[in-house]
Amino acid sequence: MHPKQQRESFRSNQYTGTTSGMCDNFLQANMIILPKEYAFEFLLFCQRNRQSCPIVDVLEEGVTTPKIADADVRTDLPKYRIYRNGQLDKEVTDINEVWQEDFVTFLIGCSFTFEKALLENGIRLLHQEQDRVVPMYKTNIPCEKAGRFEGNIVVSMRALKTEEIDKAVKITEKFETSHGTPVHIGNPEEIGIIDIDNPDYGESISFDEEERTPVFWACGVTPQNVGLNVKPPIMIAHVPGHMLITDQLEEQ
Amino acid sequence: MHPKQQRESFRSNQYTGTTSGMCDNFLQANMIILPKEYAFEFLLFCQRNRQSCPIVDVLEEGVTTPKIADADVRTDLPKYRIYRNGQLDKEVTDINEVWQEDFVTFLIGCSFTFEKALLENGIRLLHQEQDRVVPMYKTNIPCEKAGRFEGNIVVSMRALKTEEIDKAVKITEKFETSHGTPVHIGNPEEIGIIDIDNPDYGESISFDEEERTPVFWACGVTPQNVGLNVKPPIMIAHVPGHMLITDQLEEQ
Repeated sequence: MHPKQQRESFRSNQYTGTTSGMCDNFLQANMIILPKEYAFEFLLFCQRNRQSCPIVDVLEEGVTTPKIADADVRTDLPKYRIYRNGQLDKEVTDINEVWQEDFVTFLIGCSFTFEKALLENGIRLLHQEQDRVVPMYKTNIPCEKAGRFEGNIVVSMRALKTEEIDKAVKITEKFETSHGTPVHIGNPEEIGIIDIDNPDYGESISFDEEERTPVFWACGVTPQNVGLNVKPPIMIAHVPGHMLITDQLEEQ
Repeated sequence: MHPKQQRESFRSNQYTGTTSGMCDNFLQANMIILPKEYAFEFLLFCQRNRQSCPIVDVLEEGVTTPKIADADVRTDLPKYRIYRNGQLDKEVTDINEVWQEDFVTFLIGCSFTFEKALLENGIRLLHQEQDRVVPMYKTNIPCEKAGRFEGNIVVSMRALKTEEIDKAVKITEKFETSHGTPVHIGNPEEIGIIDIDNPDYGESISFDEEERTPVFWACGVTPQNVGLNVKPPIMIAHVPGHMLITDQLEEQ
């Protein structure tokens, strides 16, 4: 399906699941929406933490259509999270009712963008095969602070065969605005992940630990995680794994 | 002189002239200070116009010491301009008296950073030889708009021998945070410069037009030029050519 059609299936709530594996070749984006009062510090946070928060588009105050997608950010993602004062308030399939004219929308690169390149190079993706949302974890790796925004990065995990790891590093390092090269390979405890079977976002996947090694990429859920520490009166994001599919072809 | 000593000579007003040719190997920066109310739109403007406005540091609200220089931005540049409501109010040698706690300071790369590399490759710089501030011109090349910030880029000009141009392009393209490769070579009228002998900022230089071609680089005075269109109640910048010398070694 073309991105426009795919987004229409989200808008009409025909589909409200993960976008992993959808619309090959098109860039997918994390989304975070904040009142303008927070916009400077948040943009600076992204600029200082480019690997976890690579900005691909910013929609100015009150704007609902990105430059990189003929879409409406209020309706065209499969599922949204509304946070109030740093707490999850609810999950919804559109945000028309809570939209404010002072909202600034940030689109941030997503590792789903490079998944097709991994598949084309013979690397199997277990979360797609097992029909799960990719597992994501909070880590102990600190971001560089900007104003009120501070916290640790979130990572997505793919379990790869040892002989595939070098190839995966080389493939993904070219995707600079989609988190690039992995931030960690192997031992999850080293980056503060205690239980690989209990991700903080997404769903766990089954893999043979003798045969496969967990490989971790920086994740655009980081700002969602960090934004919660700031406790803005309202903050809206996509449900992790349920991205904006843009009209922009992937890089490389 | 080391940057710290050089900045002390500015702080004590022993020297208040251009910084071109000073502190070889150290990155020099344009500076612009705005009330926080303008900070988000301005940072976004810089992000959308990276060639003219490459951010090298941002000092959060009320902060006076950059990360990249053990300096005080209120005193350690040779000369400042205070603009009020889009008009030049006055030039001063420090800004202690007008400092506001809501000021956000932006440091932007400067083409002075690559001048040493040009000289080392045998390219003569006439503005240094003639002891003038490098000439800068308003152009007809539009920036990408961000919020209230819009306008055309400003360029700095160096007149080079034809056989030097290729070399200068190759040298400067490596200096990504110091404006990189030229934006225009030759005919000034094509980019809206009517009289090469009357620069909008800096001073004119004498050169033999049969022997030398004007080469134009994007200039960090662009935000000063664009900021005036926005008419903020107060905006502070360096006097063009009178930069912050940082403690950061140039790139490459």
